[in-house]
Amino acid sequence: MFCFNSHHPILFFLFICFFTTTSLAQKFEGKPKDIDQILENITAFSQHVMNSDYDKIADAYTSDAKIFPGNQDILSGRERIKKYWVLPEGVSTSYHKITPEEIKVIKRHAYDYGYYEGKTKRKDGTEVTWKGKYVIVWKKEKGEWKMLLDIWNRI
Amino acid sequence: MFCFNSHHPILFFLFICFFTTTSLAQKFEGKPKDIDQILENITAFSQHVMNSDYDKIADAYTSDAKIFPGNQDILSGRERIKKYWVLPEGVSTSYHKITPEEIKVIKRHAYDYGYYEGKTKRKDGTEVTWKGKYVIVWKKEKGEWKMLLDIWNRI
Repeated sequence: MFCFNSHHPILFFLFICFFTTTSLAQKFEGKPKDIDQILENITAFSQHVMNSDYDKIADAYTSDAKIFPGNQDILSGRERIKKYWVLPEGVSTSYHKITPEEIKVIKRHAYDYGYYEGKTKRKDGTEVTWKGKYVIVWKKEKGEWKMLLDIWNRI
Repeated sequence: MFCFNSHHPILFFLFICFFTTTSLAQKFEGKPKDIDQILENITAFSQHVMNSDYDKIADAYTSDAKIFPGNQDILSGRERIKKYWVLPEGVSTSYHKITPEEIKVIKRHAYDYGYYEGKTKRKDGTEVTWKGKYVIVWKKEKGEWKMLLDIWNRI
């Protein structure tokens, strides 16, 4: 198995360098294939949110996933998570972006944290912008990286 | 190395059963020594908070730890984290309790999530109670389990 962690310190160093050229703040540790898939899933998730594609949003989570929205209990499982994400008729997320600061793969799990930002378009056409920070624990399920734990709070 | 995960499914099952007798909601996966130390650290952390022992609070985190308090940016490193925890003169945390729902050890990291609750005693003697949920990523550093990522939000 090819692993950057301790077995190939030089490759690991180069890998870190490669990724840090894009942003000095970002640090990604893990096999490029895993990091790439997680990064793709992060971008795709924002797209699903902007498309109000609730099935794809729910599918981004493991079947036993937990989310931790503000001012309510922990929500468990895809059905409850999907319900959380559904916006009222006429309301949409016109902008959504996640900027990971660090992603570290550990076997079949990974932790990931950073910032998110977005805009909600209300029924009357006005927009509210918001920003926050998050921690996600990812899990590789049947070869796919899915969110197992997803918690955030506002800035 | 003794590991419950996939190598000893029966022992692992018994381990889960043993722990779940205390609470149906709790699920702990990992070597008993690791789980015990994390649980001890969780209890000790609440004690340090109630004692306003800011050095011990800071020492519960790794040197590169990140915390994610509400309404501000990610805070990094023990000094900044310690500052965050320092309460104004005359204010104290009269009660602090963390109730983990799940802890899973993965090599030298662990994820942990659950609920927390507490009471803040104000200068005038009145108390405010609060409750929330959290996700912690732990890291074993020099044989000691310390918090690497600590994020929470209120209920």
